[in-house]
Amino acid sequence: MKCFVTYPKSCHFPIENLPYGIFSTQNDKIHRIGVAIGNLILDLKQISHLFDGPHLKNHQHVFQEETLNSFMALEPSAWKEARAKIQSLLSADNPTLQDNAQLRERALVLQSDATMHLPAKIGDYTDFYSSLHHATNVGVMFRGKDNSLMPNWKHLPVGYHGRASSVVVSGTPITRPHGQTVPVDGAPPVFGSCKLMDFELEMAFFVGGPPTKLGEPIKIETAQNHIFGFVLMNDWSARDIQKWEYIPLGPFTAKNLGTTISPWVVTTLALEPFIVDNFPQDPTPLPYLVHKDKFNFDIQLQVDIIPQNSAISTTVCRSNYRYLYWTAKQQLVHHTVTGCNMNPGDLLASGTISGEASDSFGSLLELCWRGTKPLNMADGSQRKFLQDGDTVTMNAFCEGDNFTVGFGACAGTLLPCKNY
Amino acid sequence: MKCFVTYPKSCHFPIENLPYGIFSTQNDKIHRIGVAIGNLILDLKQISHLFDGPHLKNHQHVFQEETLNSFMALEPSAWKEARAKIQSLLSADNPTLQDNAQLRERALVLQSDATMHLPAKIGDYTDFYSSLHHATNVGVMFRGKDNSLMPNWKHLPVGYHGRASSVVVSGTPITRPHGQTVPVDGAPPVFGSCKLMDFELEMAFFVGGPPTKLGEPIKIETAQNHIFGFVLMNDWSARDIQKWEYIPLGPFTAKNLGTTISPWVVTTLALEPFIVDNFPQDPTPLPYLVHKDKFNFDIQLQVDIIPQNSAISTTVCRSNYRYLYWTAKQQLVHHTVTGCNMNPGDLLASGTISGEASDSFGSLLELCWRGTKPLNMADGSQRKFLQDGDTVTMNAFCEGDNFTVGFGACAGTLLPCKNY
Ligand SMILES: [Ca+2]
Ligand SMILES: [Ca+2]
Ligand SMILES: [Mg+2]
Ligand SMILES: [Mg+2]
Ligand code: NI
Repeated sequence: MKCFVTYPKSCHFPIENLPYGIFSTQNDKIHRIGVAIGNLILDLKQISHLFDGPHLKNHQHVFQEETLNSFMALEPSAWKEARAKIQSLLSADNPTLQDNAQLRERALVLQSDATMHLPAKIGDYTDFYSSLHHATNVGVMFRGKDNSLMPNWKHLPVGYHGRASSVVVSGTPITRPHGQTVPVDGAPPVFGSCKLMDFELEMAFFVGGPPTKLGEPIKIETAQNHIFGFVLMNDWSARDIQKWEYIPLGPFTAKNLGTTISPWVVTTLALEPFIVDNFPQDPTPLPYLVHKDKFNFDIQLQVDIIPQNSAISTTVCRSNYRYLYWTAKQQLVHHTVTGCNMNPGDLLASGTISGEASDSFGSLLELCWRGTKPLNMADGSQRKFLQDGDTVTMNAFCEGDNFTVGFGACAGTLLPCKNY
Repeated sequence: MKCFVTYPKSCHFPIENLPYGIFSTQNDKIHRIGVAIGNLILDLKQISHLFDGPHLKNHQHVFQEETLNSFMALEPSAWKEARAKIQSLLSADNPTLQDNAQLRERALVLQSDATMHLPAKIGDYTDFYSSLHHATNVGVMFRGKDNSLMPNWKHLPVGYHGRASSVVVSGTPITRPHGQTVPVDGAPPVFGSCKLMDFELEMAFFVGGPPTKLGEPIKIETAQNHIFGFVLMNDWSARDIQKWEYIPLGPFTAKNLGTTISPWVVTTLALEPFIVDNFPQDPTPLPYLVHKDKFNFDIQLQVDIIPQNSAISTTVCRSNYRYLYWTAKQQLVHHTVTGCNMNPGDLLASGTISGEASDSFGSLLELCWRGTKPLNMADGSQRKFLQDGDTVTMNAFCEGDNFTVGFGACAGTLLPCKNY
């Protein structure tokens, strides 16, 4: 597929990708929907009238809104039509946009001139715990080898409701929090700044399709119709606070201090070339969770840390989305099994994605094995947990034969704690 | 205070109450803000122009909206001014509304002619676990007397993020869910309908004030400025599903099947006459949670069950909001201690409110002590957990010397499960 916008072969935003995001510019502060192409953004608000196919011609307004929610709320047939139309408009043999200098001028913006925002108004945010290696690692550390995996873990995708308000877009600084911790086992808790700040390498998907009704579960056969697309996520975690608070109702203030997502939503359609076998599941899950078709993706993941005032980045983790035990379809179906309603724009995260190899673990907790194996950084410093000023940058990409589908960075800097 | 709308002394919506809600009527389907007075609703959209005080005259639009969020987003000074204005407009010696037949006709609607809706768009919903007796009861049942209360429980208000999308208004039917349970300890899980459906008697408060910023905790000194008002809540719970799924990340699908709230938001201002001593806290919490002023309320609570096709209601629980160990201010401050941002319309629930007496327990789990002590119903039947067709109705009221401040019912009927 040849695109009239030129970009190098290594570009993460080729015509095969076309991720959606929300942006604004210095000259126009209104939030609007864009599609990344090369180092540009195609402003869909400027070309909404061109979506004239049967599934979109009566819904052009969705491209004039300030979030992706209304577009996400359409059916997959509309998403497919939008993708085909954008691909066609960008293709080298289509004059519509290419040869209309005025429209092109208005509709194509440099990514470097844009500010990115949250792609959608997130009604509800859920975090799963779907990496076998991550769950096992954490279990071994905190409960010992014999009880590492809870009895329910291989029967259902364990998850918990998170805090939607605290989901922020890449680039937003995160402040080291205060909270309660127990520095000495058995002693009373103390109040102070978090000492064990961590990242969690995750991916998340946005729910699409019309809102579902309370009491009406999404079935495995149609689950894919509700999976609009994926982003990268850093689920910042205050480990010392988490350890003290999480029993018996789960993580709470240790997680609601901020969760960062990448601004570009890579659609499920764009990920199709990278489908791989599902993770083998033994025992076979209960029938409501079983699907035979592949819904796993070869997405390479990487986490880099740059210390404050340093130019030297250290790659601390290389992982892959495919290591997840539970598929996104299974997560969604289980989430709604008791009747939970889903809205377009809801965000469901994978949980920390750790592979088997020790350099593929998706958190410092695991990489440094609870602080016992410090990481050597390229600038000569060491890390057991994050230090003030550290910038954590996650990247994700799928390598095709002739192109790469990337997600754009999910980055955030840890600021020192403020006075409480 | 004499009101020109007449009502009996026992009325739950006297001029001293003035709770806010969202309603529509057969003739006008638009959702709008109303205030309950006697058996009527005062339609604030019709009288928005009368809010001419310094804190509201530039914000009259908040009374023309379809939810309470914008009104909640104002400062407490505006809430106070609104209350004073409504009280004045309804008072027997004010002719403005009373003597304007046309306006009165438009602005006063029979409650029996109105359909109530959710009072606000709930951005995020959180459920605490703040009743000492409830936490102890559950602990004794599931972990034995020696481990009944977790070590963190008296140091922080334990809570978890809930599912905002599944919060529904009183009257919405709830469907008995399907899910995974383990009927035989140690055996593999099975898929089927929930066998142990329960209610949880709770109250919840709506957050008010301007949105707070991520990274900026709400301090105990100003917490009250963010507590707009209270509703009753039934946190429907699938006990058998909960038991299997909740370790280690907390309740998930056992709770997101539906949470019912009462439609009328009783303001913190209306509850002031019913302030009582805080629950004694030993040990003294960490300083960030300490407040000396009273922020506990004498609110009598009652749960009734009416079986299907029965006219005979049985009161199964009488409890009181004052039994809560942690105050709403402490809940809010702890929720944001690590920097979680709060938005007007966020909902924070108390957790099941159980007292010391065995008939004050706020769930069937406790009332029937895990099914070992069936309840005798007035119609001759028995209950260990809810049966299909049961209507659970919660009521709450504060008894003053000459008036009662009530919350209106929080009711829901449990429908049999559908085919999965
Ligand atoms: Ca996580
Ligand atoms: Ca509850
Ligand atoms: Mg988080
Ligand atoms: Mg609930
Ligand atoms: Ni439309």
